[in-house]
Amino acid sequence: MNIAFIGLGQMGQAIAHNLLKRNHTLTVFNRSRAKADTLIQAGAHWADTPASAVAEAEVVFTMLSDDAALHEVALGEFGFLAALPEGAIHISCSTISPETARQLAEQHQTRKTKYVACPVFGKPDAAQAAKLWLCTSGNQGAKENVRPLLDLIGQGVYDFGDEVGAANVVKLAGNFLLGCAIEAMAEAFTLGEKNGVARSAMYDLFSNTLFASPVYKNYGKLIADEVYQPVGASPALIRKDMRLLLDVAQKSLVPMPFGMVVFQQLTATVAKGVPDIDWAGFAGEVSENAGVGKR
Amino acid sequence: MNIAFIGLGQMGQAIAHNLLKRNHTLTVFNRSRAKADTLIQAGAHWADTPASAVAEAEVVFTMLSDDAALHEVALGEFGFLAALPEGAIHISCSTISPETARQLAEQHQTRKTKYVACPVFGKPDAAQAAKLWLCTSGNQGAKENVRPLLDLIGQGVYDFGDEVGAANVVKLAGNFLLGCAIEAMAEAFTLGEKNGVARSAMYDLFSNTLFASPVYKNYGKLIADEVYQPVGASPALIRKDMRLLLDVAQKSLVPMPFGMVVFQQLTATVAKGVPDIDWAGFAGEVSENAGVGKR
Amino acid sequence: MNIAFIGLGQMGQAIAHNLLKRNHTLTVFNRSRAKADTLIQAGAHWADTPASAVAEAEVVFTMLSDDAALHEVALGEFGFLAALPEGAIHISCSTISPETARQLAEQHQTRKTKYVACPVFGKPDAAQAAKLWLCTSGNQGAKENVRPLLDLIGQGVYDFGDEVGAANVVKLAGNFLLGCAIEAMAEAFTLGEKNGVARSAMYDLFSNTLFASPVYKNYGKLIADEVYQPVGASPALIRKDMRLLLDVAQKSLVPMPFGMVVFQQLTATVAKGVPDIDWAGFAGEVSENAGVGKR
Amino acid sequence: MNIAFIGLGQMGQAIAHNLLKRNHTLTVFNRSRAKADTLIQAGAHWADTPASAVAEAEVVFTMLSDDAALHEVALGEFGFLAALPEGAIHISCSTISPETARQLAEQHQTRKTKYVACPVFGKPDAAQAAKLWLCTSGNQGAKENVRPLLDLIGQGVYDFGDEVGAANVVKLAGNFLLGCAIEAMAEAFTLGEKNGVARSAMYDLFSNTLFASPVYKNYGKLIADEVYQPVGASPALIRKDMRLLLDVAQKSLVPMPFGMVVFQQLTATVAKGVPDIDWAGFAGEVSENAGVGKR
Repeated sequence: MNIAFIGLGQMGQAIAHNLLKRNHTLTVFNRSRAKADTLIQAGAHWADTPASAVAEAEVVFTMLSDDAALHEVALGEFGFLAALPEGAIHISCSTISPETARQLAEQHQTRKTKYVACPVFGKPDAAQAAKLWLCTSGNQGAKENVRPLLDLIGQGVYDFGDEVGAANVVKLAGNFLLGCAIEAMAEAFTLGEKNGVARSAMYDLFSNTLFASPVYKNYGKLIADEVYQPVGASPALIRKDMRLLLDVAQKSLVPMPFGMVVFQQLTATVAKGVPDIDWAGFAGEVSENAGVGKR
Repeated sequence: MNIAFIGLGQMGQAIAHNLLKRNHTLTVFNRSRAKADTLIQAGAHWADTPASAVAEAEVVFTMLSDDAALHEVALGEFGFLAALPEGAIHISCSTISPETARQLAEQHQTRKTKYVACPVFGKPDAAQAAKLWLCTSGNQGAKENVRPLLDLIGQGVYDFGDEVGAANVVKLAGNFLLGCAIEAMAEAFTLGEKNGVARSAMYDLFSNTLFASPVYKNYGKLIADEVYQPVGASPALIRKDMRLLLDVAQKSLVPMPFGMVVFQQLTATVAKGVPDIDWAGFAGEVSENAGVGKR
Repeated sequence: MNIAFIGLGQMGQAIAHNLLKRNHTLTVFNRSRAKADTLIQAGAHWADTPASAVAEAEVVFTMLSDDAALHEVALGEFGFLAALPEGAIHISCSTISPETARQLAEQHQTRKTKYVACPVFGKPDAAQAAKLWLCTSGNQGAKENVRPLLDLIGQGVYDFGDEVGAANVVKLAGNFLLGCAIEAMAEAFTLGEKNGVARSAMYDLFSNTLFASPVYKNYGKLIADEVYQPVGASPALIRKDMRLLLDVAQKSLVPMPFGMVVFQQLTATVAKGVPDIDWAGFAGEVSENAGVGKR
Repeated sequence: MNIAFIGLGQMGQAIAHNLLKRNHTLTVFNRSRAKADTLIQAGAHWADTPASAVAEAEVVFTMLSDDAALHEVALGEFGFLAALPEGAIHISCSTISPETARQLAEQHQTRKTKYVACPVFGKPDAAQAAKLWLCTSGNQGAKENVRPLLDLIGQGVYDFGDEVGAANVVKLAGNFLLGCAIEAMAEAFTLGEKNGVARSAMYDLFSNTLFASPVYKNYGKLIADEVYQPVGASPALIRKDMRLLLDVAQKSLVPMPFGMVVFQQLTATVAKGVPDIDWAGFAGEVSENAGVGKR
């Protein structure tokens, strides 16, 4: 297939490489060209604009950092939407608001192209290993058509129906659950630490028994060790996701006390200018407020 | 071995049955005798008081609902502590404050008996299946001596060292983590529900992928279905645990914003007089505050 | 002076009447004409559109319910901005975001008209009695020119400098402080109630001593009596203000735990569909969660 | 009258001086004698123990820092309760739990002496000026008998009936309302600061208009100036009061989200070891979390 890929951060590059492996024709665009180098070496074509990237595309993937960036590559000057061939499908992997997804889907419909919401769960290493979990929503036929591509980049697909915003609600909810697990472990481990129980001892118990799951194992280790490196995603980036979550909650009248706590911990982390750490490092707020901060 | 068992609620009965299976001599006591019936049929001896239950015991298990109940059976009129033969070991399984554990351990030391803290994780069905997770702390030799008994009732033992209160801190932290997972799922599922995503759809995704663990699977199902039956433990009982947790946090100067939220949800549940539900039913507070309560 | 007044809710009508008393020429517009009746009887002229209302205005007041309504009357079809005579001054009394104020001020500058931010504190009865407290910010000369008009409608003016958004930040902060006082009294009075101290007894003490101020006296009485009538402003309306507050807080990286609590109480009140009460009625959430709700 | 006074901190000394002015016979006791010096110079008698202080007392005042200290001077070795002449009245001014008040009142009843709960509002300077606000509860006759003494030390008395714990519930609620006003102003002023509005400008408006009351004027100034000196009461001391408040709330099933926030801010302040500041300095937590801490 003829595929365009727009947005080559850590996640985008990893996904694009997995698409290349199956000999699909891949044309890529990114704001800064340097990030396309290894993909071009691996056989991808470079395009100077989003619009030129999709000139012959059957499918265009986008993986951008936020709603504004997606809006720009789709609808800005040299945006791809107007250039997308009729019948082509846009697989939108970014974590964005359901509202933006709905607006874009409408624009596609007007132009006889299609929008599939496909936000993903997983860190960059999971993306490289094609072990992402994918959430889809939108037009049924389009989803079926692109399914073989999705199977190249993830280990499973969960579908949330026709309403195009649904998958984004789920993605935001997932990041929220993650943030809750981080805060909860931070509080528990800090309580242990101040009462003579090693952070790692509590981590060993819970991550191997009641909470034996990827999130508690992986994020739990960072929190137990208080080492928030490498940076999978920055506090500012995930804070943006939590803001989108609280926007959805606000519009649909859902009080979310945990959501508010997590948002505030991330806000404090960003406001204090804590340097280069993974977003899980907001766990350090708990230690700091207990007088045992090491961050 | 000659074992006494005091406290025959759902959990206590299940544990005691597993001890009986190995032909240990078991003498039991409970405030209301009716709960001892099946154990007596299975070969246990009945004692009219805690003191008489331990008259020849090498080991005494206690599984009571709170600090006050444990205090009563140990140190009250007809309490067992004064009657316990020198060298005997008290395996204390209740969820109590680390402070109470420390005080009891001191009393034991004076009397040349020993105290092993051994709070457990698991619902009554896990207790029946000898699938509890056990947390121990206290005297090293005593822990080694009773290890064969612990292996009869659980699927694994995590030890937290000599300091006798440590295992109780861990137990309280575990119940707290559980409460956090419940609140987090309640908020996420309710957000989905009000935005067109079925509670069960979100549950399926998260409990099978990022959060695939016993807690998210089992409690998550209750929250997705909004069916809080059968009652594993009442809201009032676990609210007591959260109060103990916050007491420890208060004494050791650890701010716990999530702990406070969970405690308040449980308090509201109890204050409103919500009838006979499992404690996970505090998740209904979230739905109610979003205008979609079904509890 | 030749004055236009746009937006005739309870607050707008009361303010406009006070302007009329000094024989200023007043032209009014409102979405539904019925609300202009008593003003027209008192000598005001009616205009069919915002644009025609300002045709000869030296000053235009706006008092709308939210940013969108203000945007519509200023910049929508028949919006007044394009029709405002050069040199005229817009006195903007609505509770809106500082961002909207800044954007409007820029539009004015382009057109050689001027924008004065002038949000007000006070209920409709204070507006009628010309006892509002006014907060201003924006162009110094423009503020001086309209000062005689402001003295007709308020009991005092506090100025917050040249930056046009400043007065709106202050207004949002004021509503926030009010919300905090309401929540605080709700918690205190409910604690008293459940411990044998009458709500009114606690109210008498605090509103006459340490907290003897208009807010604690007036709102405190509603909360003590649990009578949330008449409706000064609806829960949904002030919830909008709290959302604007949290938006400002979010953009400027200020964690506001109290702001989050108040917002959630208002959200729950709106989500539950509590009928026709003043926004102070969110105090009922506290009673309800304590099992003594009467709302 | 023959009066004993036990507990000579800043508050106790100031109150005792006001009693001396009317030529009452005053016998004082304090853990460290140095604090009695100026009172002895002014005519008070020194007693070496609480018991000897009350040997001929008609009335005994107590003003201690917490429940434990009061318990010690009343019921400990050399405690005054057993030595108090029949018919004498204990005026208990400390901020303690209603539970402790009830227990002490019972002990008094057994001994044919009487207990009047009389917690006070006001800083040391208000105590010196005899401008305290007094809250009473307990035996009606006893309250009437000591009323002339209360008029010497305060500017007004609010009575809360026969139930002896009531006045203490009110006192805790008052400190809570104070803490809420502090947190609310801290959030509002910090929001202003980060949006170009001077802390003092917002303070001027609110403390002179809607919130014109002693608390907002006095505490507001500390928060506006970010100068938390002199120390009226330490963060640790008032944190103790908030803990008592939350204990009452816990026992009576009242969720208090604001109470929890204030308690956590105080806990963080104490945990971080912030040196010698007034308890209002917990406002610095808000600034710190917004990245503009100066404390």
